[in-house]
Amino acid sequence: MAKISDIGEFGLIGRFEKLFKVPGNITRGIGDDCAVIKENGSYLILTADALVEDVHFKLEYTPPRMLGYKSLAVNLSDLAAMASEPTAAIVTLAAPRDTDSDFVMEFARGMNECARKYDCPVIGGDTTGSKKHIFINVAVIGETKTEPVMRSGAGEGDLIAVAGNIGESSAGLELLIENAKGRKLSWGDKIFKKRLARAHLKPEPMVKEALEIRKVLKPTSMIDISDGLSSELNHISRASGVKLVIDSGKVPIGRSLSDFCRDRSIDPQQIAIKGGEDYALLFTFKKKQVDKIRSLKLNAPVNVIGEVSRGRGVYMRRDNKLEKLTSRSYTHF
Amino acid sequence: MAKISDIGEFGLIGRFEKLFKVPGNITRGIGDDCAVIKENGSYLILTADALVEDVHFKLEYTPPRMLGYKSLAVNLSDLAAMASEPTAAIVTLAAPRDTDSDFVMEFARGMNECARKYDCPVIGGDTTGSKKHIFINVAVIGETKTEPVMRSGAGEGDLIAVAGNIGESSAGLELLIENAKGRKLSWGDKIFKKRLARAHLKPEPMVKEALEIRKVLKPTSMIDISDGLSSELNHISRASGVKLVIDSGKVPIGRSLSDFCRDRSIDPQQIAIKGGEDYALLFTFKKKQVDKIRSLKLNAPVNVIGEVSRGRGVYMRRDNKLEKLTSRSYTHF
Repeated sequence: MAKISDIGEFGLIGRFEKLFKVPGNITRGIGDDCAVIKENGSYLILTADALVEDVHFKLEYTPPRMLGYKSLAVNLSDLAAMASEPTAAIVTLAAPRDTDSDFVMEFARGMNECARKYDCPVIGGDTTGSKKHIFINVAVIGETKTEPVMRSGAGEGDLIAVAGNIGESSAGLELLIENAKGRKLSWGDKIFKKRLARAHLKPEPMVKEALEIRKVLKPTSMIDISDGLSSELNHISRASGVKLVIDSGKVPIGRSLSDFCRDRSIDPQQIAIKGGEDYALLFTFKKKQVDKIRSLKLNAPVNVIGEVSRGRGVYMRRDNKLEKLTSRSYTHF
Repeated sequence: MAKISDIGEFGLIGRFEKLFKVPGNITRGIGDDCAVIKENGSYLILTADALVEDVHFKLEYTPPRMLGYKSLAVNLSDLAAMASEPTAAIVTLAAPRDTDSDFVMEFARGMNECARKYDCPVIGGDTTGSKKHIFINVAVIGETKTEPVMRSGAGEGDLIAVAGNIGESSAGLELLIENAKGRKLSWGDKIFKKRLARAHLKPEPMVKEALEIRKVLKPTSMIDISDGLSSELNHISRASGVKLVIDSGKVPIGRSLSDFCRDRSIDPQQIAIKGGEDYALLFTFKKKQVDKIRSLKLNAPVNVIGEVSRGRGVYMRRDNKLEKLTSRSYTHF
């Protein structure tokens, strides 16, 4: 008997992709950040993302309000990766019958906060029971008149860039686990004020940033960094049929992450490359556009980290040597 | 501390309805079978429904192929309740890492069977881990040019009708539990050939039937009977602000259910009224249309079971006395 952990998350997705054939009006089915339906010159974008207790979060360090916020935010990040604006969300919450009703209402308030901030009303869903763990699923629909940006358009000679900092969420998770050891964190705990912890608990999807990048740089491919930079680079490489080479010195590392790593004598680059759940944007664009980076109106840093070339695979140049970056990172089995 | 089981599923939905305000283009948000977004003279319909292991199904009597089929079918039934045709589905599957990969592929094949039959391609979703139980969520999008049929349009003098048989799914569940006692059912077991068991494991959503009913009878309200007749009548009564009276002798009971109940000396009416997961359609329509029932081209029986009148609440007439039917039935906490 083969277990799904033997096949892996992406192995399963590959099998599903073969099984579920899609009709012609579905521009993109299984295998990108979102599915795309083309209709009368406009595109409907659909995506869903689940958060499962004790897999994606633990109650001991997760305030319900932030959990609600994040559940919607991670979906908006998938829409952003296609440079699409959100239209509406539907939410499924399955929870054990003895769940505190205050927990559920705080969760709902957090989600509503995100819904208002990003103009994505929660318009329906399902509320149901669960035997043991809390299970959250959010499905989001978006719409765009412009063709969505896929993973598959990167071409030889394009530059590779990241908008936002990476590695912070996974460092934040470390901090939260350290702080929660043997007890449940409460709102008073200072940890919730720290940038790294907030990066993990309450990420901000780069919806506006993605639209600005699309307008100014006309990206050839884009993806959000939910599974770690290394993994996302591999997604683009495979979908576009190209080789990606990034420069180790150019991986963007924010000061909070530097401080965190210095205290612990660990290499921030490793965290930045392998850590998941950052919801920064990774994209490629034509080299001739590079001067336009300066005219981007963004609150987040944009860094060119490498270049697309002919071939296959993903590599990092360090001390003039190429190291292969595999797609191992976040797989949830 | 109040637990969610104290507030109940519908209590929570009520609170969410207040919290999540929806903008003007959302014709219907939380509180109907589906959410409705109006756009350029057409309506986008969205719905989501989850199936959770050991709450909605147990693995000992649920073949994965049927589980996949049902997971999509129950969502199509919600679309049908609005007289909308499906466009596409996105699926979330969270499963423990030691889940048999054959189980997952059989699940996917069952879902694909339903997707093809009802022309609702599965175009994306999320595959992820779970600590213990299997969680399935399906979100479906549909589209209709005609205004969707809501729960809220029933008016004084309308007739109440049911398309399809009811009570079969809940009798089927009884049978399955009896047959599985102390062991796991296998494909060879005769139980899977029985109509009642299939009604539970592999329900057929009345998508085409709903469109035919809309065309011929112009229903004033409609809902699918997922939570039991009694509960659904109460939904229509509340949403429409009317009193519903059904006639005990007219509740449609199929022969399989009669046989099942005779063997066990139980009252089929009780099962028909309280049992859930039938996915038959309950609707109201103007009395002057009643003769058109004969011209309906349906494979399912249509029975007029009562009448709408001024007032509030839901009642059943038995021996010329009115019994109140409460909305208690399926609540998943």
